[in-house]
Amino acid sequence: MTEIPRQAGRPREEATAPALMDAARRLVRTNGYDKVSITQIIKEAGVSRQSLYRRWPTKADLVLEAFFESASQGAFGDERHPDQGSARQRLLDLLISIFDHIARDGAAMRSLIASAQEDPQFRASFIEKFVLPREEIVTDILQRAVESAELPPQSDVAMLSAMIHGAFWYRMLNDWPLNTAFAKAMVSQIFGS
Amino acid sequence: MTEIPRQAGRPREEATAPALMDAARRLVRTNGYDKVSITQIIKEAGVSRQSLYRRWPTKADLVLEAFFESASQGAFGDERHPDQGSARQRLLDLLISIFDHIARDGAAMRSLIASAQEDPQFRASFIEKFVLPREEIVTDILQRAVESAELPPQSDVAMLSAMIHGAFWYRMLNDWPLNTAFAKAMVSQIFGS
Repeated sequence: MTEIPRQAGRPREEATAPALMDAARRLVRTNGYDKVSITQIIKEAGVSRQSLYRRWPTKADLVLEAFFESASQGAFGDERHPDQGSARQRLLDLLISIFDHIARDGAAMRSLIASAQEDPQFRASFIEKFVLPREEIVTDILQRAVESAELPPQSDVAMLSAMIHGAFWYRMLNDWPLNTAFAKAMVSQIFGS
Repeated sequence: MTEIPRQAGRPREEATAPALMDAARRLVRTNGYDKVSITQIIKEAGVSRQSLYRRWPTKADLVLEAFFESASQGAFGDERHPDQGSARQRLLDLLISIFDHIARDGAAMRSLIASAQEDPQFRASFIEKFVLPREEIVTDILQRAVESAELPPQSDVAMLSAMIHGAFWYRMLNDWPLNTAFAKAMVSQIFGS
């Protein structure tokens, strides 16, 4: 491959996407989604505006991919062995990894949820790219729990999923702690102690 | 009582508090909490700045009392006969009245929750004046359900309360519908069908 001359200090082309996602995550964590501009992100990443728009049509698309990537790496959905272990254990592991993620990135998560309230277009993207994929992971675990008789046959899987996500959104939005004890208590309430 | 001359178009002294709360509710419903100023509220209410500060030290105090009053009148806590009926029926009635309230005032509720994310001082007031009183109503119903054996003795009342409030916060913040069918499904999941 021929070396293409590039501007000093700028990441190579193939490195611009990770640099932009890193920059977006850093800025949203520090300032909140609303207060971060495209201009700040490209400046922080040290790349051109064009290299952002080549991949993401809007700030929302970039930020959500940045947090979706971050969330898939070790939290919110680290389901590496979905067929191993009981549904109860899988839900517990998932909740613990979600709560770890919130402990690190709760402020950014809360700023994304707050922004979704004021901006219907961002809300639609947020739901499509963030909320629904996580819903699916939890409803899948619960569905298997019903099939394996870990949960009673009449369980309302969609309702349980709303109650599970709801409980930690509610605690996160009130800035109340989420830890392993809370994850265990939730799983015990759902599956019985 | 001697008639005190007053400026034309201004509410009498005893009417200023309701006028201010009405104005605060109308403006927050239309514009969202963040975008409403004290100046707009007193202008909308047609009262003096002094009459607002005589009763409320901050915008947050006025707005939360305005919505707390509104919420107590027929929603979020219309517990007129707390000793009558089963806990299951009381929870169902409460949820239906909360969902009616959200159907009417969901946008304002969402703007208050969004503002609570960005402003720690407002969050503290919001939790004290809005969240905790509602927590108490639900945990009281659940506690009585355990005492009357409508719920199993090992029920985690605090967890169930987080799951109940959480489920409707989660649906409200994603702008998903909350109706009587959802209230009935939640109560069935909790108490068994």
